Amino acid sequence: MVHAKITHVKGLQFVGEASSNHAIVMDGDPPAGGHNSGLTPMELLLVGIGGCSGMDIISILRKKKQDVTGFEINVNGRKAEDYPKKFDDISLEFVIKGRNISEEAVKRAVDLSMTKYCSVKAAMEGSAKISFIYRIVQG
Amino acid sequence: MVHAKITHVKGLQFVGEASSNHAIVMDGDPPAGGHNSGLTPMELLLVGIGGCSGMDIISILRKKKQDVTGFEINVNGRKAEDYPKKFDDISLEFVIKGRNISEEAVKRAVDLSMTKYCSVKAAMEGSAKISFIYRIVQG
Repeated sequence: MVHAKITHVKGLQFVGEASSNHAIVMDGDPPAGGHNSGLTPMELLLVGIGGCSGMDIISILRKKKQDVTGFEINVNGRKAEDYPKKFDDISLEFVIKGRNISEEAVKRAVDLSMTKYCSVKAAMEGSAKISFIYRIVQG
Repeated sequence: MVHAKITHVKGLQFVGEASSNHAIVMDGDPPAGGHNSGLTPMELLLVGIGGCSGMDIISILRKKKQDVTGFEINVNGRKAEDYPKKFDDISLEFVIKGRNISEEAVKRAVDLSMTKYCSVKAAMEGSAKISFIYRIVQG
């Protein structure tokens, strides 16, 4: 069981802490009445899907002895216009930099994360179209 | 469009930043090979659903002129045993403290968030059973 406690501070500002004992500040953006003092809950979904798949992919590439020198994930989410204004389309771009990186290894790592391991993607794939690409930067 | 960029730092540690320009550290827990230096991506889902519904509810209670002096949300997520080990059951407890709080107002605010407004709940309700209760503490 994973636990989180979210405590109201002021305005739309909340502090969320979880089982790991780490905490973050959340806030609404100004159009929603917030003061932008922290990430929005919707942003956490995009950060979470990027972090979750990133952890899978870097773990698999290490097992495959790939010499990764840099790794970034860009995530874009399009919000529906009508309430509850959920993301209806999420796209991920995995940018892997390294020396003599095998495209086959990258393709396999990305596919394994997206189809089997990434629990955050699995949490959202019923409600959004999720697409992904990867890009390898040698050097 | 909401954007997030997630950058690998070391081990399973990533920094995620989003459109609001706020950033957080994520890490895996030790059984997954991480060093627990930040929230896990799965924890972000629970913090996010609590923050999202919390912002809805506090906004609605203010419009209803309720004198809320404290507000906490407890979220528990049960992970499935098989990959992708997504949450299959999420429960939320809303604890509203205040003076002369109307139960009718709280019930309505919670129901509106859970059935209409909360975009993070909408993102996950296809993949997990989500339940909620509220508790009012007068004083």
